Amino acid sequence: MTTGIRIRTFGRTRAVVLAGVVLLLLGGQGFADVEEPAAPATVQSLSETIQSMNIGLDTMWVTIAAMLVFFMQAGFGMVEAGFIRAKNTCNILTKNFLDYSLASLMFFLVGYAFMFGDGSFIGREGFCLLHVPDVIAGTNVQKWAFWFFQAAFCGAAATIVAGGMAERMKFPAYLMYTVIISALVYPIIGHWIWGGGWLAKLGFKDFAGSTVVHATGGWAAFIGTILLGPRLGKYVNGKTKAIAGHNIPLACLGVFILWFGWFGFNPGSTLAVGDGSGLALVAMNTNLSAAAGAVTAMIVVWILMGKPDLSMTMNGALAGLVAITAPCAFVTPSASILIGAIGGVIVVLGVLLLDHIRVDDPVGAVPVHGMNGLWGTIAVGLFDVQDGLFNGGGAKLLGTQVLGTLCVSLFVIASMGLVFFAIRKTIGLRVGRDEELRGLDIGEHGMESYAGFQIFVTE
Amino acid sequence: MTTGIRIRTFGRTRAVVLAGVVLLLLGGQGFADVEEPAAPATVQSLSETIQSMNIGLDTMWVTIAAMLVFFMQAGFGMVEAGFIRAKNTCNILTKNFLDYSLASLMFFLVGYAFMFGDGSFIGREGFCLLHVPDVIAGTNVQKWAFWFFQAAFCGAAATIVAGGMAERMKFPAYLMYTVIISALVYPIIGHWIWGGGWLAKLGFKDFAGSTVVHATGGWAAFIGTILLGPRLGKYVNGKTKAIAGHNIPLACLGVFILWFGWFGFNPGSTLAVGDGSGLALVAMNTNLSAAAGAVTAMIVVWILMGKPDLSMTMNGALAGLVAITAPCAFVTPSASILIGAIGGVIVVLGVLLLDHIRVDDPVGAVPVHGMNGLWGTIAVGLFDVQDGLFNGGGAKLLGTQVLGTLCVSLFVIASMGLVFFAIRKTIGLRVGRDEELRGLDIGEHGMESYAGFQIFVTE
Amino acid sequence: MTTGIRIRTFGRTRAVVLAGVVLLLLGGQGFADVEEPAAPATVQSLSETIQSMNIGLDTMWVTIAAMLVFFMQAGFGMVEAGFIRAKNTCNILTKNFLDYSLASLMFFLVGYAFMFGDGSFIGREGFCLLHVPDVIAGTNVQKWAFWFFQAAFCGAAATIVAGGMAERMKFPAYLMYTVIISALVYPIIGHWIWGGGWLAKLGFKDFAGSTVVHATGGWAAFIGTILLGPRLGKYVNGKTKAIAGHNIPLACLGVFILWFGWFGFNPGSTLAVGDGSGLALVAMNTNLSAAAGAVTAMIVVWILMGKPDLSMTMNGALAGLVAITAPCAFVTPSASILIGAIGGVIVVLGVLLLDHIRVDDPVGAVPVHGMNGLWGTIAVGLFDVQDGLFNGGGAKLLGTQVLGTLCVSLFVIASMGLVFFAIRKTIGLRVGRDEELRGLDIGEHGMESYAGFQIFVTE
Repeated sequence: MTTGIRIRTFGRTRAVVLAGVVLLLLGGQGFADVEEPAAPATVQSLSETIQSMNIGLDTMWVTIAAMLVFFMQAGFGMVEAGFIRAKNTCNILTKNFLDYSLASLMFFLVGYAFMFGDGSFIGREGFCLLHVPDVIAGTNVQKWAFWFFQAAFCGAAATIVAGGMAERMKFPAYLMYTVIISALVYPIIGHWIWGGGWLAKLGFKDFAGSTVVHATGGWAAFIGTILLGPRLGKYVNGKTKAIAGHNIPLACLGVFILWFGWFGFNPGSTLAVGDGSGLALVAMNTNLSAAAGAVTAMIVVWILMGKPDLSMTMNGALAGLVAITAPCAFVTPSASILIGAIGGVIVVLGVLLLDHIRVDDPVGAVPVHGMNGLWGTIAVGLFDVQDGLFNGGGAKLLGTQVLGTLCVSLFVIASMGLVFFAIRKTIGLRVGRDEELRGLDIGEHGMESYAGFQIFVTE
Repeated sequence: MTTGIRIRTFGRTRAVVLAGVVLLLLGGQGFADVEEPAAPATVQSLSETIQSMNIGLDTMWVTIAAMLVFFMQAGFGMVEAGFIRAKNTCNILTKNFLDYSLASLMFFLVGYAFMFGDGSFIGREGFCLLHVPDVIAGTNVQKWAFWFFQAAFCGAAATIVAGGMAERMKFPAYLMYTVIISALVYPIIGHWIWGGGWLAKLGFKDFAGSTVVHATGGWAAFIGTILLGPRLGKYVNGKTKAIAGHNIPLACLGVFILWFGWFGFNPGSTLAVGDGSGLALVAMNTNLSAAAGAVTAMIVVWILMGKPDLSMTMNGALAGLVAITAPCAFVTPSASILIGAIGGVIVVLGVLLLDHIRVDDPVGAVPVHGMNGLWGTIAVGLFDVQDGLFNGGGAKLLGTQVLGTLCVSLFVIASMGLVFFAIRKTIGLRVGRDEELRGLDIGEHGMESYAGFQIFVTE
Repeated sequence: MTTGIRIRTFGRTRAVVLAGVVLLLLGGQGFADVEEPAAPATVQSLSETIQSMNIGLDTMWVTIAAMLVFFMQAGFGMVEAGFIRAKNTCNILTKNFLDYSLASLMFFLVGYAFMFGDGSFIGREGFCLLHVPDVIAGTNVQKWAFWFFQAAFCGAAATIVAGGMAERMKFPAYLMYTVIISALVYPIIGHWIWGGGWLAKLGFKDFAGSTVVHATGGWAAFIGTILLGPRLGKYVNGKTKAIAGHNIPLACLGVFILWFGWFGFNPGSTLAVGDGSGLALVAMNTNLSAAAGAVTAMIVVWILMGKPDLSMTMNGALAGLVAITAPCAFVTPSASILIGAIGGVIVVLGVLLLDHIRVDDPVGAVPVHGMNGLWGTIAVGLFDVQDGLFNGGGAKLLGTQVLGTLCVSLFVIASMGLVFFAIRKTIGLRVGRDEELRGLDIGEHGMESYAGFQIFVTE
């Protein structure tokens, strides 16, 4: 099978860039012996060279951004692992490892085609990237880079769910879920918004995925954790018991890695370097929103609970990041601070609300990704410098944003609810009581996370 | 409020880059449907395109560098956490989280204006980046990227202090300190050296901040830890007791992250890609100096203490990194090895000296950042390829360097001494004896770092 | 000594880039006051500007890639630390720290010259980079960046061995080994393949180092661990005892960091941005192969051992990464999936095989780097889109690949066998029995990794 590989032909590259790429043709890092003598430059040849450099530059930018988005996987893994108990740590990390790996393969085989191919409800072209043009239409980005960037996004959507359903979900059930969300559900939503589908046509704006990625992952986690039921010992005799995370420094590192990776997620979504103003504004807004979210979450939890809790502060930063993901390219830095600040309040209240309604979400996936995915998407309608309500743009965009993000959230809850229900009826969603008490590391994987350490296994 | 947002207008971008940025206008990662037909290229149009690409390229470079500098925050957090006791780990990580977040907000509101605005002792323009031109004068860097890069530096200066004052400082006192250093003290020093102030006018050279960032943070930690007093049990009956760090692998990871992030800190300070020689030399010098510092620190501690201690080796690498920060663009690779090697010796002797004079600096912030900040700045006067003493440049530059770094260090000690003294007299600097014994995680934050693990709480 | 430093002269840089680099001349991040008025652009001047920008762009790309390769050192450290027992963790991290530092210094002093200088068996020019031209011939990369990239590769080759010989090797012996491999053995092999030596002349293709780096490190670990002998308690009374790693989350983080860093290792080996197609394809192939390796390793271990073991899954991802390193630029994405999938099978069978023949390799360095280094190199001969056996290219390339990788592997086993044997006969390779039981952290370094934690020290 050929996927139209083109590495041997550099038709666009000329003159000055030739020396460099010649290496690629000869194989490996060694030195080329021969250099073609450059013809005298003309306006035409310079224009072509610049065009090729632009494609190279934008492709490099998107590739670097994709690396950073990939690295978020480590962030998710460490946050999720750190916030749960030691006895289930290998389990969540295996899920984390496998969801990215399976998402990569699925997104190559079918996901990309479903998301970016022509079609109305769902795309239907580009399986295995066959017949996709070398440079993605409307961009200066080589298809390999565009795929890599989008595949990493797909992996992020998949992995969000692991945290919400942690400490009790069967491993084979998780593998099944992950194939379905990355091959089908995420690409369908992506098609609607970024693939030219009905929401794109309505003018729905989601710059880097508050809805596409985070609301999708967050609300899938919501319905999943409801269908799973709470962890043993979480709600006993009408009381909610806090189950402390086993490794807060690891979780903290994870949040920093996520914040770092978000600088690929959001600025990379420009898909172009241009004159740099776009990617730079997005990076600054992303940073300010995260900072504001951390500060307000700390203040709110301090007021409500009496102490500045670190876990909540970290979730506040993540809330700010999720919330700014949709609007990051459309709003001012000052608005970004406000958006993140509100995100930090939402996440604290969201955590309390979930405990109140007895939905057991061990790492806060629903408040962070679901609720703030909604909030960030709606915030575009309020703060957009062109069409936002607060900038005199009227309520049209706001309406579209509310409609779009609600439709997606409901679609996710319905479709993933069906999926989880079907899994529950067949291979089963939840491990047995004994295994849950003893820990899934032993039960599912036959290993333990911290051999040699003395650890109390609780409930 | 508007901060002069310009994302909708790409006046400079033309012809070939248009396709890419058009996306930005239409919102999100989806595809643009329309492409303006490119007019035939002329020398004039190509020249403008190249100018725009250059701005894009330099802005992208500085933005990527800023991401790396941000990531150093994770490195600082893990080093500081790993080198202290488990019972105070959440506390230092919360400080780490909040100092970066507050520094980001402060540097947006006032810090940037104090540092880079016109003015003599302190800048007075550019609050919230209002009226700052799109592209920073004298560079090809968009203001958003320049701000992000500088804000991350500000956060680094603030966080250095957390380590020196670890395990006993009140959390609210830390928040107060962090607002003052990031909003006022750091920007003033930055203004003197990088904002066109009196040291800049004298010809003082500090390429990436051995003095601006590291001496500032290091000497603030010095005066802070003196005013706090040593940890309980550190100096008992005339004897110094080693208090071992609780998680050396975490600290080691932190050092690697710092080293990695330093490749944004130093090479990014070129603020330009140019023909690449500047950023590449800086990267190489940074790497060689760190390597040399690690090796000499290991050798010296091996000779003095009998074993190749890992903590000291890691601090040796950090010492090399701090020392090369000022001279990295002005010296040869061979000189970089020498500068780092001497840094590695300084850090070991500095740790011993501090214990001798009973200044309790749990993570070595003063020897690493303060002493090597001085050394690196002075090293410019010795090894500068143009004006260094050892390159026949006479003692003029050396004199300026010594004067500048001493003035800054004394200013920091005086101003921050005043700040810490005022905090001590009002809300108090230090937690109570019982809380210190039990650990600040419980006392300040109501949580613990390693739930389930059996840990001996010492002293 | 001068190493031909050129930072003061930017002969190639003109017109538009001038503003940016002027900063560099004036020292530090401050603003330049003066800007030379740009002469009117001509085709000639634009052509020179573009040439300079190309050098800048490719140099920046290689420098960023080098940073990522450096960061792999953290990945190696965390994987190796996590997979062994707590009592030997500081020891392996110190080795990890020092091998990179020593490799950096050695590769500056002599390694670069041995690898890339003219010469037949070994290079003989470019010690301390003296007389190396500013821009590396056949590329658009400044020598400083090229050196940094190659030095980071050298460090990677050195550090692979630490894992295989973990938990029993003397620290001074390790320092001696590391100097020899980084100053001599690795550069010789690199010279043969990337420095224009005999394998390069035969047409041997190793894009990013399946053989140069991984087979070298892997087979050095193989002979080293044989000469060391197994850990106490590993093979007792004809039975193999599993010795569990002490911190699987840390190892998992390490694998993610390695995967992340590999995006510098492989795509960076293009040494050029060009039109981006090369680096983007390489990035995508790298990702797919790693994903496939993780999935097949999980499946195979699940079938053979009954549970989806996380350690094996992680080693599967690493196997996929090693295997795709040689062919990543020469094969299609579909072939990359196949190559990685086979790599995942090889690593599981390889671990079992080593236990069968009683070679005690605590972290799986030999199956991951040695066996998959071979496999990846051979895979070029099968799947190369131009000359691969399966693409109708005949068996010529395949023959060259098999010959080349086998010669290198045998050379490594012979030369490093001699080195380890000589070390054993002089200062000794292995710590004493008591020290091994108590742990090398105390014995070699006088410290412990997790002060305060209650840990069972096993065997």
